[in-house]
Order: sequence, then C-alpha cells, then structure tokens
Amino acid sequence: VALDELSIVDRFFRPLAGEGAFALKDDAARLAAPAGCDLVVTADLIAEGVHYLPGDPPDSVARKALRVNLSDLAAKGAEPLAYTLALALGPRADGAWLAGFSAGLRDDQARYGLTLLGGDTSAAPAATIIAVTAFGAAPAGRMVHRFGGRPGDLLFVSGAIGAANAGLALLREEPGPWERLGADARAALVLRYREPEPRTRLAAALAEFASAAMDVSDGLVGDCDKLAAASGCSAAIDAERVPLPGELRTPDEATLARLLTGGDDYEILAAVPRGRAAAFRAAAAAAGESVAEIGALVEGGGPTDVRLRGKPLTLYRRAFVHAPGKDAG
Amino acid sequence: VALDELSIVDRFFRPLAGEGAFALKDDAARLAAPAGCDLVVTADLIAEGVHYLPGDPPDSVARKALRVNLSDLAAKGAEPLAYTLALALGPRADGAWLAGFSAGLRDDQARYGLTLLGGDTSAAPAATIIAVTAFGAAPAGRMVHRFGGRPGDLLFVSGAIGAANAGLALLREEPGPWERLGADARAALVLRYREPEPRTRLAAALAEFASAAMDVSDGLVGDCDKLAAASGCSAAIDAERVPLPGELRTPDEATLARLLTGGDDYEILAAVPRGRAAAFRAAAAAAGESVAEIGALVEGGGPTDVRLRGKPLTLYRRAFVHAPGKDAG
Repeated sequence: VALDELSIVDRFFRPLAGEGAFALKDDAARLAAPAGCDLVVTADLIAEGVHYLPGDPPDSVARKALRVNLSDLAAKGAEPLAYTLALALGPRADGAWLAGFSAGLRDDQARYGLTLLGGDTSAAPAATIIAVTAFGAAPAGRMVHRFGGRPGDLLFVSGAIGAANAGLALLREEPGPWERLGADARAALVLRYREPEPRTRLAAALAEFASAAMDVSDGLVGDCDKLAAASGCSAAIDAERVPLPGELRTPDEATLARLLTGGDDYEILAAVPRGRAAAFRAAAAAAGESVAEIGALVEGGGPTDVRLRGKPLTLYRRAFVHAPGKDAG
Repeated sequence: VALDELSIVDRFFRPLAGEGAFALKDDAARLAAPAGCDLVVTADLIAEGVHYLPGDPPDSVARKALRVNLSDLAAKGAEPLAYTLALALGPRADGAWLAGFSAGLRDDQARYGLTLLGGDTSAAPAATIIAVTAFGAAPAGRMVHRFGGRPGDLLFVSGAIGAANAGLALLREEPGPWERLGADARAALVLRYREPEPRTRLAAALAEFASAAMDVSDGLVGDCDKLAAASGCSAAIDAERVPLPGELRTPDEATLARLLTGGDDYEILAAVPRGRAAAFRAAAAAAGESVAEIGALVEGGGPTDVRLRGKPLTLYRRAFVHAPGKDAG
C-alpha cells in the first residue's frame, strides 16, 4: 500500500508533536526559548548507505538521526527542547519501517525530553535521507563554542572512544581484534555504532565550566585538531589516557591509532581551565557521566601531538570521512 | 576533484553565514526572535527527480529550496530571519553545481533578507536532497494558522494559479495549450516551475487581517479543502475568478481543471473576514502584491465546491502529489 504524506503524518508523526507544533496541522510552528535561556540550533543529517547501513533497524536509525543532533546540543551546553524532521523516503522505507522509525523517535523524545515541532516528508528516488534541525536551551550567555579554549586548559573526553568504529568494522567484516570477541561484546560494539549515547546530562557542567567543547564525530584526533585550531592553539594528548571501551582495553598500536581516528563516537571533547577542572569532574560525576583527562591545549598552531608512553603514536589518518559505502542503496 | 565537507563549507557556504552563525565554525548557532515578535519555524525539503528535475540550473534549485520555505513563512504572517541547510549531495552535485547553488542562495538571501544559520553537508548515494528549516518573525500573538477561518470569510489568492504546473508540463513534454505559446511565454512558465515567488511582502497584511492562511503548493482545490477542514467548514470558489497566468488566460475546461489542481504554485490562500476585506486589499496593494477574491468559506464540511459560471467544474483530481518522475536520478 502506497503511503501518502498525509497518512504518514497521521499514523506516525502526529503523536510526536509537542507545544508550538499545532498537532502538525499547520504549515509552521512557534518556538520560544525558556526564560533566562538562549536558543541553540543545530542541523545534522544522516543518509542511508553513508551514516547508517540499509539493513539497520529503523528504530536505531531514528535514534541515530536524533542523537547526532542532541550530541551537538550537549557539547554547546544546551538542554534539548524540540526538533524538525525532514524525511526523504527511499523505496525501502515502507509502512513497517516507518512504524519502527517513529517508535524510535517516540522513545528518545521521552528519554531526552524533547518534542517534534514540524517537518516534511517526501519520496526519494533512491536512498533515504533524514535531516534533523534540533533546538536546545543554554543558560543565557553561556553557550559553549569550539573557540574559547586557551593554552594550558585541560582536555577531557566523555565515555569511551572507538566502540562505534569497531562496531562498524564488525558490520563491514573488516579484520581486527573485535573478531575475537564473544557475541555479547560484539553486539555491544555494533549497538554503539547504530545508537550513539548523547551526553545530554553533561550539558549543564559544560555550560558552567568548559572554555570550549565539541562532540567527537569524525575521529578524536581530527576533532582535537579542530577544537584547538578554533581556539587559536594546538592540542597534546596522551593516547594511553584515552578511555577505550571495555571490550578493546589493550589494543595493539595500529588498532589504537584506528580507534583514536575512527568516527561516530559522539562523545564530548571539552577544554576546561585548570583551576576549574576539579569542579568540572565533580559536576560530571554528579550528573552520572564519566570524563577522563587526556591532555591539554598548548601554545602555537599545528596538528595534535599524540603520544603513547612519551613517543609519537603513528597515525595513518587523522579523521574519519563519512562516504557512501559499497553497500550504499 | 573530490570535495570534502570542510572545503565545501569554506568555499561555498561560509560567506552566507549571518548573525548567530559563528561563521559556521561552531557546531551550533544561536537564534533569537526580535523584540515583540514570535519565532516561526518551518521545514520543507526538495528532492532531485521529485521536486526538481536533474537538469534544472543549480541556482534555480537553490531558490526553490529556500522559497518553498519562505512561502510558508509568508502565509503565517512571518518575515524571514534565517535558515539551516541540510544538503545530501548526489553524484551530479560537483563543484560547478555547488558554485551555482550557493550563488542562488546568496542572491535570495539579499532579496528576502535572511542569512544562513548552520547546516550539514554529506554525500548521498544517488539523488540530491536539500532540506531547509527556515525561521521567521511574526508580530507577537499574530501568527496566522490554517485554522481560524469562519463561515462567511472571503477567500483570496495571491498572484496567479497554474503557471508552474504548465511549466512542468512543458519540461515533461506533456500535451496542452502551452505547446502553442511562443518561446518567451514558454520560458516564463518554466521559470515559475523552477523558481516560485514567495509572497513575503504580503506577510504583514496577513498577520493583520487574515483569519487563516496557507501557501498553495499541492493544487489550489485540494489546498482549499485543507484550509477549510482545519477551520471546521468548507469552501466554495468560482473558477472564473481564479487569476490565471497571462499566457493561459482562456483555457478549455479540462485545462482549467488541471491548472486549479496542479502543484508548485506557492501562492497564498487566505481567509479574510468580510468586514476587513477592503483593508486587506488595500494593504496588499500597498505592499505591491495582487490578491483576487475567489470565493468564501461556508458552513459545514466536505470538499470545496468549485463552480464555473454557476455549474460544477469537472475535476479529475483534487491535489497534486509530488512523486519521483521517470527521469528521477
């Protein structure tokens, strides 16, 4: 049964609409920042065959589409409010797919506290494209930027780095130590590729203590390059201090280099002035998030200095580029 | 030469960034409504092979992507402020295409007074998808909705109806009276398909006088159905009062029915209480836009009653469905 736009909205999206959305029965929505807050806006899209695989479960795809945006909001010190959804549906996105997709959105709306504000649904000739614009609230004047870090500031990263990249390697059947893991450990890595964990609970601590922050989506090393460059300095990190997922705790050097330059972590990289580091750690712990000190910002430009037990770590790439895979639709 | 996201942003999009966008060097933007205004948000996407043809000029594609959103803002009584752009670039979108596309955005930013707030660029496996979320400002409490019209309110439409659908018919080499037109007249119709004219200058008059409004994107008759249904009544229109483009002024009945149910007009359909109709006409004229009274809202539900010189006009469809064409990429 072919689904027209109106029946898609009726069946799957109207129940997700919140304040200002007029039950998706209007052509536009109304949005206001809470008192004492600035409105923060971010826009990230995911494409079938590029950011997710055609066979990924539709509820996971929905979570990824939302969470890559929530991760940006968190890095800016903003709590989620609402989002718009532009959905170009390829031939594989049928009613069953939409049911799973909208269920994934519904779950994450409840988990992260945001509602659907509006959107647009269209047929797409080939691959499905999901474009979200997400809105958050940061304490007035306290939005955190990529710029603003200063030499001497400590660098922190949330959670663990590399799990999503190992999960993608498993899905693509690429060789590596992940092949030797048990089924549960492999499934955990795949889940981290499919469903990032945005660090929304860190937003308030970042707004209060960070001098600069961004989410790590294209590889930790390259993203350190970007934060440092935006802040007019460079970064130095100790590879052995970077938290890795439990499944991959003692990798060989080549694997370590791969994990530190893989994509899809959606962790937070933050610069925090030394004098505020203890307070930041305490606020993160109180919010239930782990953060690890991995290095510092230093004077001067140039790429991040990545050391392993004092020696430069050999890197074959600095960043991960999202490109259509050979299995792209 | 393959273009990575950073060089695409540097070359084509950074010059378009405005206030709150942090020169597109951050992960998110800051947005505020002007004093005394509500923030209005709309999201519309266009897909290659669905809403535009693969061979359409890239600057026209950019204008269409922006203008379908500006048209929604105008219908809600909102003046344009800013937009986010999610761009999934298919294989045909190379550097030359991006240069033309960004030039089209730049021109329209100047024409309509808005700036780029942020966005995301990705490769797409096949067709290009362009998703815009646009932000506008309506006088506080005066946003115009689809609902709110009442029986007795007069129905007005801006500009002329059917030119874009005739332009699409020309591009698809479908038979009709447009085939007998001269080259200039044909080119004018094609241009109206490729480049809608959002009625931004009507926004203030709508905010002041309209009880309900929407933009006409999926065929006038079907959109009359929608506005009337949202307002809890039905519509009656006189086909001979609907303004047609000069090139198609005296169509046969079948062509007239086609034009009144074709898509891509992006004109404004507005309900205005009778007692305010003269003031609305005057405000529209002062703003430099033409509006024509085509009928009225009436008690009770049901589809729009479309009459031609007092007799029901035979309609073969009520609305235009945007679907992938046979030339879709």
